[in-house]
Amino acid sequence: MSTFQSLSGFRDFLPEDCAFRDRLFALWRESARRFGFDPYDGPPLEPLELYKKKSGEEIVKQLYNFIDKGNREVALRPEMTPTLARMAGAAQRAYKKPLKWFSIPQLFRYERAQRGRLREHFQWNCDIIGEPGLGAEAELLALMVDAFRAMGLGAAEVEIRVSDRHFWKDYLARHSVPEDRHYDFFQAIDKVGRDPDEVVRGKLGALADDVFRIIREGGSSPRLEELLGLVAAYGIQDFIRIDLGIVRGLAYYTGVVFEAHDRKGEFRAIAGGGRYDDLLKNIGGVDLPALGFGMGDVVITEILKAKGRLGPEPDPRHVHLIIPDEAHRAAALEVATLLRAGGYRVDVPLAAAKVGRQFEAAQDRGAHHAIVVDGAWSTQRTVGLKDLATRAQVSVRLRVEEGRVTGWEQV
Amino acid sequence: MSTFQSLSGFRDFLPEDCAFRDRLFALWRESARRFGFDPYDGPPLEPLELYKKKSGEEIVKQLYNFIDKGNREVALRPEMTPTLARMAGAAQRAYKKPLKWFSIPQLFRYERAQRGRLREHFQWNCDIIGEPGLGAEAELLALMVDAFRAMGLGAAEVEIRVSDRHFWKDYLARHSVPEDRHYDFFQAIDKVGRDPDEVVRGKLGALADDVFRIIREGGSSPRLEELLGLVAAYGIQDFIRIDLGIVRGLAYYTGVVFEAHDRKGEFRAIAGGGRYDDLLKNIGGVDLPALGFGMGDVVITEILKAKGRLGPEPDPRHVHLIIPDEAHRAAALEVATLLRAGGYRVDVPLAAAKVGRQFEAAQDRGAHHAIVVDGAWSTQRTVGLKDLATRAQVSVRLRVEEGRVTGWEQV
Repeated sequence: MSTFQSLSGFRDFLPEDCAFRDRLFALWRESARRFGFDPYDGPPLEPLELYKKKSGEEIVKQLYNFIDKGNREVALRPEMTPTLARMAGAAQRAYKKPLKWFSIPQLFRYERAQRGRLREHFQWNCDIIGEPGLGAEAELLALMVDAFRAMGLGAAEVEIRVSDRHFWKDYLARHSVPEDRHYDFFQAIDKVGRDPDEVVRGKLGALADDVFRIIREGGSSPRLEELLGLVAAYGIQDFIRIDLGIVRGLAYYTGVVFEAHDRKGEFRAIAGGGRYDDLLKNIGGVDLPALGFGMGDVVITEILKAKGRLGPEPDPRHVHLIIPDEAHRAAALEVATLLRAGGYRVDVPLAAAKVGRQFEAAQDRGAHHAIVVDGAWSTQRTVGLKDLATRAQVSVRLRVEEGRVTGWEQV
Repeated sequence: MSTFQSLSGFRDFLPEDCAFRDRLFALWRESARRFGFDPYDGPPLEPLELYKKKSGEEIVKQLYNFIDKGNREVALRPEMTPTLARMAGAAQRAYKKPLKWFSIPQLFRYERAQRGRLREHFQWNCDIIGEPGLGAEAELLALMVDAFRAMGLGAAEVEIRVSDRHFWKDYLARHSVPEDRHYDFFQAIDKVGRDPDEVVRGKLGALADDVFRIIREGGSSPRLEELLGLVAAYGIQDFIRIDLGIVRGLAYYTGVVFEAHDRKGEFRAIAGGGRYDDLLKNIGGVDLPALGFGMGDVVITEILKAKGRLGPEPDPRHVHLIIPDEAHRAAALEVATLLRAGGYRVDVPLAAAKVGRQFEAAQDRGAHHAIVVDGAWSTQRTVGLKDLATRAQVSVRLRVEEGRVTGWEQV
């Protein structure tokens, strides 16, 4: 006998964890559906060059890249946006604009292993391509809030901080900061309030106090004020706060950017995104404005579990068959087939077992009812029905229509 | 402007393809749910050693393996069963047996690039762990048939060929073929009817004619006959045919094996699986019997598309808002929020556009209704409702309950 280990930083999803994840994914898909977003997906592996320079240093230096057997430089995707830009650029002619697309890719990174630090996560990506106006920003923010509400998270629990890189670009231009220093400047703003002021001051130089004042006095911009009007029409204004201290790390953002946090600040950022009007041109070969956001599965799962949300729901259509005598196995399998055809979730004992053990298994599986199949099935089309919560057992006749069970009546 | 290419052998899923794939995945999940199978998932990347020797040469030589940045030998998973064996072996103590688990992993291989040859696919994996009896084989076969039926594929279109490696092991023992020649023998049987008889004859030697006779005369075994009794109780006997020519390539199978094909033989195998009673011991460190099957997305998608199955369904809850005057944008966004809260799929024009263009967009998006929001919303809570198929337009009052639209009445 031997045992194997999984790679450090990669998760196994045992059934309870996987079921939770699937409920989260279903919730994301359902919000996307309500907003008219269409699904897409791309390869988990892409040529390394797709990420070089476009994504910002902090992503490129953490890439999970390698040389493949064909001597190509490839990388496990660290984010979805470059793939989206590539795909949308190649296919956009076939679609009316704007495109509203979503995906739930697994993403990867490779950095020095730290305890508990993951090398993969799943991320809900929602993007709008081909719309330059703020209506697109408002729609994306409303979509994110729709998902929060579906999770039972209200404006008292989460907020989305919205900022505008245009504001800072104009600011830097006014203060004659050269273009090649903008990226470092944005990185420094990103750290205001997170790193000590003296540290950030060293990076911002003479502009430091003015930048601190703008962020801390709740500075805004005409663009952000217009956006606030739109989000109010969506009825999501309680979730939104202007915060010019948000810039997002990625190099490709060009306009409005935003980040969702839990109000208490107990967790890392829940989601983030913004406008990246140059990326389609640089990667997809077509000049289309675009914007989007990503919400990872790790932080939101921590929050939902801490609040006891999105837990398993009891399934009244989950039944467990009991076969008291192997002579009735064929009858039980027939009943199982009829129930399953009717949409019931049916566990069948796959081998002979004592009746007590079968009832234990039914309890353990979380079944709602046990259905006892014995000779009465062949003679009267009746079975024993035991409610596993109340332990009441009655005899019922299954209503069978066109080869499927559609209900039952007590006899 | 520049454009990037994806890696050869990796698919992009544009919205129509991705929606088809999602419908297939949903169908698979729904069949698994009806049979009481629980979801699990594991890492797409595993240590190379997990696959060495256990999976059979044909998989190992096609592995998508590489050296990672930490100098570890790793591989993108070529199949799910070793991961399952590792996970189940480590976690099985927490669960009553048998485990019934399913997953839909993306799998990878690397071989010489050929035109149209994919390096990734998705595969529905369903496995039962901890049950040594044929009840488990029958349950798995019934699950596969349940999925076929849900796809609209009947016994006239697909069949599952079932064989038994035990039969051949006994046969080889009777004919004193040494253990170390069994694997090659199985590989040769696998080719009967696919490679020319002379080629197979060269590999089977003196036993060739006897083997040909057994397969072609429809030979069976007591175990397979018992299994046939069980599948009849499930009502799936029309889908099942005994065919001792099926052995499955993988080295780890130990008992009953099976493979699903389209009856006309126009496509490659749809699905395959079998019993692998030694794998948990070898990989998971715990001696538990196990069996399972995998169904890839590529062949079944070809079949379903050829037959026009699993296509998009019209969605009567898909509406497209029309904003005839930007003065009513805020009202339209309010209506959109109420409709979405009620579960409707709602497309909103994100920027000002001529009304004719908005109706065109509604048609193009495949919306069922267009909803025109103008001043009547604020004054009378009414909107214009246009059926995009019949082009009939009426004025309706939206029924709003607790912040969500629950229907509408003509006024």
